[in-house]
Amino acid sequence: MRTVRTLGLLGTGVIGGGWAARALHFGIDVIAMDTDPAMEAWIRGAVENAEPALARLISAPLPPKGRLSFTTSLREVAEGADFIQENIPERLDLKQRVLAELSRHAAPDVIVASSTSGLMPTELQRDMQAPERFCVAHPFNPVYLLPLVELVAGGRTAPATIEAAARFFGHIGMHPLHVRREVPGHLTDRLQEAIWREILHLVNDGVATTGELDDSIVYGPGLRWAAMGTNMIYHLAGGEAGMRHMLAQFGPALKWPWTKLEAPELSEALIDRMVEGTRQQAGGRSIRELERLRDDYLVAVQQALRQFNIGAGATLGALEERLYRAAAGGAEQAGTQGGSVLPRYEARARAEWADYNHHMTDFRYGQVFGDAMDAFYRTVGVDDAYRRTGRMYYDVESHVRHLAEVKVGEALYVTTQLLAVDDKRLHVFQRMHRASDGKEVATGEFMHLHVARDAAKAVSVDPQIRARLEAVLRAHAALPAPAGAGRRIGTRSQG
Amino acid sequence: MRTVRTLGLLGTGVIGGGWAARALHFGIDVIAMDTDPAMEAWIRGAVENAEPALARLISAPLPPKGRLSFTTSLREVAEGADFIQENIPERLDLKQRVLAELSRHAAPDVIVASSTSGLMPTELQRDMQAPERFCVAHPFNPVYLLPLVELVAGGRTAPATIEAAARFFGHIGMHPLHVRREVPGHLTDRLQEAIWREILHLVNDGVATTGELDDSIVYGPGLRWAAMGTNMIYHLAGGEAGMRHMLAQFGPALKWPWTKLEAPELSEALIDRMVEGTRQQAGGRSIRELERLRDDYLVAVQQALRQFNIGAGATLGALEERLYRAAAGGAEQAGTQGGSVLPRYEARARAEWADYNHHMTDFRYGQVFGDAMDAFYRTVGVDDAYRRTGRMYYDVESHVRHLAEVKVGEALYVTTQLLAVDDKRLHVFQRMHRASDGKEVATGEFMHLHVARDAAKAVSVDPQIRARLEAVLRAHAALPAPAGAGRRIGTRSQG
Repeated sequence: MRTVRTLGLLGTGVIGGGWAARALHFGIDVIAMDTDPAMEAWIRGAVENAEPALARLISAPLPPKGRLSFTTSLREVAEGADFIQENIPERLDLKQRVLAELSRHAAPDVIVASSTSGLMPTELQRDMQAPERFCVAHPFNPVYLLPLVELVAGGRTAPATIEAAARFFGHIGMHPLHVRREVPGHLTDRLQEAIWREILHLVNDGVATTGELDDSIVYGPGLRWAAMGTNMIYHLAGGEAGMRHMLAQFGPALKWPWTKLEAPELSEALIDRMVEGTRQQAGGRSIRELERLRDDYLVAVQQALRQFNIGAGATLGALEERLYRAAAGGAEQAGTQGGSVLPRYEARARAEWADYNHHMTDFRYGQVFGDAMDAFYRTVGVDDAYRRTGRMYYDVESHVRHLAEVKVGEALYVTTQLLAVDDKRLHVFQRMHRASDGKEVATGEFMHLHVARDAAKAVSVDPQIRARLEAVLRAHAALPAPAGAGRRIGTRSQG
Repeated sequence: MRTVRTLGLLGTGVIGGGWAARALHFGIDVIAMDTDPAMEAWIRGAVENAEPALARLISAPLPPKGRLSFTTSLREVAEGADFIQENIPERLDLKQRVLAELSRHAAPDVIVASSTSGLMPTELQRDMQAPERFCVAHPFNPVYLLPLVELVAGGRTAPATIEAAARFFGHIGMHPLHVRREVPGHLTDRLQEAIWREILHLVNDGVATTGELDDSIVYGPGLRWAAMGTNMIYHLAGGEAGMRHMLAQFGPALKWPWTKLEAPELSEALIDRMVEGTRQQAGGRSIRELERLRDDYLVAVQQALRQFNIGAGATLGALEERLYRAAAGGAEQAGTQGGSVLPRYEARARAEWADYNHHMTDFRYGQVFGDAMDAFYRTVGVDDAYRRTGRMYYDVESHVRHLAEVKVGEALYVTTQLLAVDDKRLHVFQRMHRASDGKEVATGEFMHLHVARDAAKAVSVDPQIRARLEAVLRAHAALPAPAGAGRRIGTRSQG
């Protein structure tokens, strides 16, 4: 088959627009065809909307972007493209007619694929010329961000077509899943449709609202499904005996009315297939190892969601706000702030902070120092409420020295020592220690500037907060000056 | 109801252990009961295993940890706990008997909740004393990391019991979902079970393996389900007309054999309920706004998964490796390395890097500088293959100056200038610019040390790589020395 330089698209709706954005981003030219000329503006808008997310997803260098052209002529796509993806409405007769016509104009070594959600490839290729170059390639919305594409051969599809399509989709950053037997809905939509129909029953029967049903997924199983499917998750739930134990324990529930879908008979042959399948998926990893992996990604996913205050991330954010408030109240009561002991902040090197060598990556030291500084600021009244008045401290200069490596999982603490405070500036020195033996692993020296967002310039800090900072500074002045402060960076040859 | 200081647990399997770890972490004492004394060691091990993940999930200050005690006496739990959670095997008669006995010993203001996956609360509370303090509280594995808990009242449950239980579960970091009508399997397990039974059919019919079926979720819909349920996702897929358009478009598919589960009749009343439910979920946000939110979290989740090389994160990692190799090959061919132009690296400020003020957080500057340095290192041969030989460069000292704010989404580029290279050290100066107008937004000065992992000390760099670095250094020597290099941090008063 040909090297794909130009992708042809038939139909320019949400799916067609997603294909265009993805292909262009990876340097593939696109000819998009729609019978409605007004769709040219639409698809250009869709590509533009997708661009920021795609640019953030991939940080590696990309080839120059592809060029997008638009036509209302089927023939122009058929003759100008190296690979054609069909995304017209989900009607078998319409697709059959368009695919047949397309196949009369496109050279026989041009692969033609259909984005159909569930129609069968054997039926779609029925009236085509050179039907061996046809397959289903079913993507998921948003096509430019989700890697899955299901590839399904029809009765007359050549194996080489599936191989070449898999190579092309891999090239544009996707994960091709070869569906080995054609069934209505392929694989993914059968599973999605089972959930969807159960949802419709529950709403229809007045048991729950759409919002409650969505919540029943996003705060629980949905987090797991971000990286492990139902089979692997149930393998883990079975403890050391894995899937076999799980089937023994929950097998009887298959007879209970837990969904309107009736289960197949749980025969010995079916049990063996389920057990053997998950054994292969585990790939020699123990349940313990897989549990650690699951826990690691569940932590990282919830923290990623926290940035957007959505789902489990919103739960986590609200929880931490409450804990910070409680701790601030406790510290005030106990009168520990402003004492002679340096403010102390505890943290742990997270698994997702690891570098190639399972040590904490350089820039994460900056994150821990920043978190420690945030915690200190809260104790003197520089908190969310203060920031909502449009004023805040910004880091204008930082100097970090890395003195020892930190392993993933190690407990750390950071002390914060004020070196100078004036109306607009705060000069601070922080030390990061390993909790197990107290070893100093890094120091950080920072200059912060107090700014007003609207004025976009440095302004004086609130007098009450300045008074609290001065009190802390006086207490810290009694301590020895930090040895690492005020250093420059340089090799010996530069003095 | 009582303030919960001590949680009682009946049954100490995977679920009981998860409850213990979560409660202890939030400062609640736990009395765990099991008829098998050997389970004491098991539950202590389970709590210990959960601890690292919990510690990483929550960075806010927590109250002192609770204490765990173990007993084989039902009565001891009944008399010593303020809230009792039952997690014994999923058999109705067994649960009924144990709950009845428990209720004779526990004061009537002690809430008793069952972790049952799908049994009905009205049946479970049948023989209890003070049945009004009973409810179902169904959690999800791992209980210490997933926030979802389904609360279901039975026919004799008091509304105050559900309210008090929701408060307690909120206190230990969970998201209580009130299931308003009891049905077998509650809500979540009905949806999970629908997928599960469809999976069993597909494996039974020889259509796909467990691994293929898991892949059909984790590379596609599973990523979306991490923060939006099927209803909200379908609302977005419907374009500007949302759920109503979606039902018009895919309604006919409900009659197709896309799953073995038959759908209900898509009546006008059902359509109205689905549309009204998703309208409420959208909460006034446009489809465009929701799409941006979806795209933001899909990017962040895939990047979180990348750290663990799992699912879509593995796809992304392999893709970036390929792109870096291609770019390195291209640069070599074009002979641009070692020229007089500074190596240039392009990036974009990601949405998940925002601070309170929608600007790029301080420590992320360090990340971008580090990524630029990584890209530079690859061009001289310090890549994954080199690191696999156990040698690598480490950042030992860094000095970052923040000169201007960077807004989320802004395109950036970083230039890298070598200042000095010797056998073991590399002194480098980087400048970060806003791409739109070239404005310098930050500078970074770094000292890197070449180390061997096994020796855990500085060692000489590979001679071939050093030669390449020297060539770059010679080319850079012709450029003006950076103005910001060699500075110290200090306020005026310190000179």
